[in-house]
Amino acid sequence: MDLKQEIQTRAHIFNESLNEFLKTKKPEKLYKAAYHLPLAGGKRLRPVIAMVACEGISKSHKDIIPFAIALEVTHNFTLVHDDIMDKSTLRRNTPTVHVEYGEPTAILAGDLLFAKAFECMTEYKEVLPVWSSLNQLLIDGIIDVCEGQQLDMNFESRSIVSREEYIEMIGKKTAALFMIAAEGGAVAARASPPVQQALRRYGFELGLAFQIRDDVLDMNSTTQTLGKDIGNDIRNGKKTLIAVHALEHATGEKKKILCDYFGNLDATDAQVHEVYEVFKELGSLKYARDTANQYGFNAKESLQSIIDSPAKNILLSLADYAITRKK
Amino acid sequence: MDLKQEIQTRAHIFNESLNEFLKTKKPEKLYKAAYHLPLAGGKRLRPVIAMVACEGISKSHKDIIPFAIALEVTHNFTLVHDDIMDKSTLRRNTPTVHVEYGEPTAILAGDLLFAKAFECMTEYKEVLPVWSSLNQLLIDGIIDVCEGQQLDMNFESRSIVSREEYIEMIGKKTAALFMIAAEGGAVAARASPPVQQALRRYGFELGLAFQIRDDVLDMNSTTQTLGKDIGNDIRNGKKTLIAVHALEHATGEKKKILCDYFGNLDATDAQVHEVYEVFKELGSLKYARDTANQYGFNAKESLQSIIDSPAKNILLSLADYAITRKK
Repeated sequence: MDLKQEIQTRAHIFNESLNEFLKTKKPEKLYKAAYHLPLAGGKRLRPVIAMVACEGISKSHKDIIPFAIALEVTHNFTLVHDDIMDKSTLRRNTPTVHVEYGEPTAILAGDLLFAKAFECMTEYKEVLPVWSSLNQLLIDGIIDVCEGQQLDMNFESRSIVSREEYIEMIGKKTAALFMIAAEGGAVAARASPPVQQALRRYGFELGLAFQIRDDVLDMNSTTQTLGKDIGNDIRNGKKTLIAVHALEHATGEKKKILCDYFGNLDATDAQVHEVYEVFKELGSLKYARDTANQYGFNAKESLQSIIDSPAKNILLSLADYAITRKK
Repeated sequence: MDLKQEIQTRAHIFNESLNEFLKTKKPEKLYKAAYHLPLAGGKRLRPVIAMVACEGISKSHKDIIPFAIALEVTHNFTLVHDDIMDKSTLRRNTPTVHVEYGEPTAILAGDLLFAKAFECMTEYKEVLPVWSSLNQLLIDGIIDVCEGQQLDMNFESRSIVSREEYIEMIGKKTAALFMIAAEGGAVAARASPPVQQALRRYGFELGLAFQIRDDVLDMNSTTQTLGKDIGNDIRNGKKTLIAVHALEHATGEKKKILCDYFGNLDATDAQVHEVYEVFKELGSLKYARDTANQYGFNAKESLQSIIDSPAKNILLSLADYAITRKK
């Protein structure tokens, strides 16, 4: 099975529905700003996970498309607002929405996408139990993302954050949408509650693995590879798992480097690099990679009770991909 | 009938339900920021309109409470984000959310309120037709508000805005939530489609009257009376109906004053006052008051086909209040 191919096939089907849903209206500036990011591509991982989870049970992903769109639109709305909060200037190799359209319109663009997510969900209005459950999942997911983002920001001004606190934060900020993607697929396919729970756990563990891998990649990559600002996480003092580990273990000169440059908005590129070297020397990067691997393993284990199928194989491969991907 | 008393009685009932719904969770900073504005009071006009509209048909407002909460929470979410966009520092006599909690948390607080609005709507999930209709009203209302706010911002950089464009803008930005409040009340009470339409029109016209009166009051008031920044509208070059009228009619020295100080962020208090005097001399304030009166009249006329009831009397008085209120 070629995972890349399997993802692309579904992303293509998904994109057609998404393009049809995101029709531009007036005022043009607002709609252009709102659709800038969702129409700029992206991996479409959340919709694809929802589609595959649905296929695993009902052999079709037809019933999950509106929810998949709502998920992706929600994900994009959170990115637009997060980029304002984090003062990020690049995403997916293009200027962020607030850089391109100004902050006020970017705030509104996020709000509009938020409303569009719920608009899309009304496609389910003839199937009350499914609508009700998926709607609740979406609401819970968004609240989790908001809480997670606030925790993340709270961490920036704290000197020490525990591993448990970090996991709670990414559990909400990132894993929540993966979790409801997989669970939503099962709900739309009318899976039994235990199967819904298994997929929910799969999505959550996958999301944790994915986020930690993301932190590792952000740390290793250059702007060219990942299409995001490099060094932002270090300058903003982002408490990634790598930073959490390093701050706990650094002593002497290493501790001084972290104190001076980690979370220092004025740090030069050379100073950012010094912090990176400390992370490497303390084994913090390896620690983060190992932890991501563990969550990837947990994700696969969550699917043990699910009957074997091509869809299940894709989900298993996705867990491997989450922890081995290079971008 | 004592309108103030009628409003307060319902606002009190509404506040009890709202307080119960807005339970603080963690992270505390986020929830405090999100609940700052909704728990700071306010007239609760939108929920009260929804409650009275519902009473007019079903003699009870029980069925409309969750929608009324969703409406008020939505209204507050838009205020939180608008205050960031408009750089307002005061609202309801207290510092705005972004001043008190910082801009990133204020953006998130708005997002959280948005999600809470939809969470509240799930109370209707056992009554599919009502849930479906009210949910759609809420989505349409929020999209209107986003579009209206963008139009409003677009107007700031334009030298001339027509009366029609201005009405389209406030129709979306302000009147949309009044419209769905009144229509929602009728929907929850299972009114016939013509009655729903009559109340929809009532709410829309009332909202227009209300917004134009608001612009007049903003222009006349001091910070003490209204609890908002005075002069902001003039410095930001807000195209209120007053400004629209003045820009169309000003010539000579008056035109120069508008060119120099209207939309000039650095205008002194004295220069802001000069603009105000031009508005008065051109009859723009009177024109706005007359227009508000016309919409108030239209609102009342919309209710002609509705059977007389104490609730209808309250709605009629509300239309009078919208155009005569001093704050």
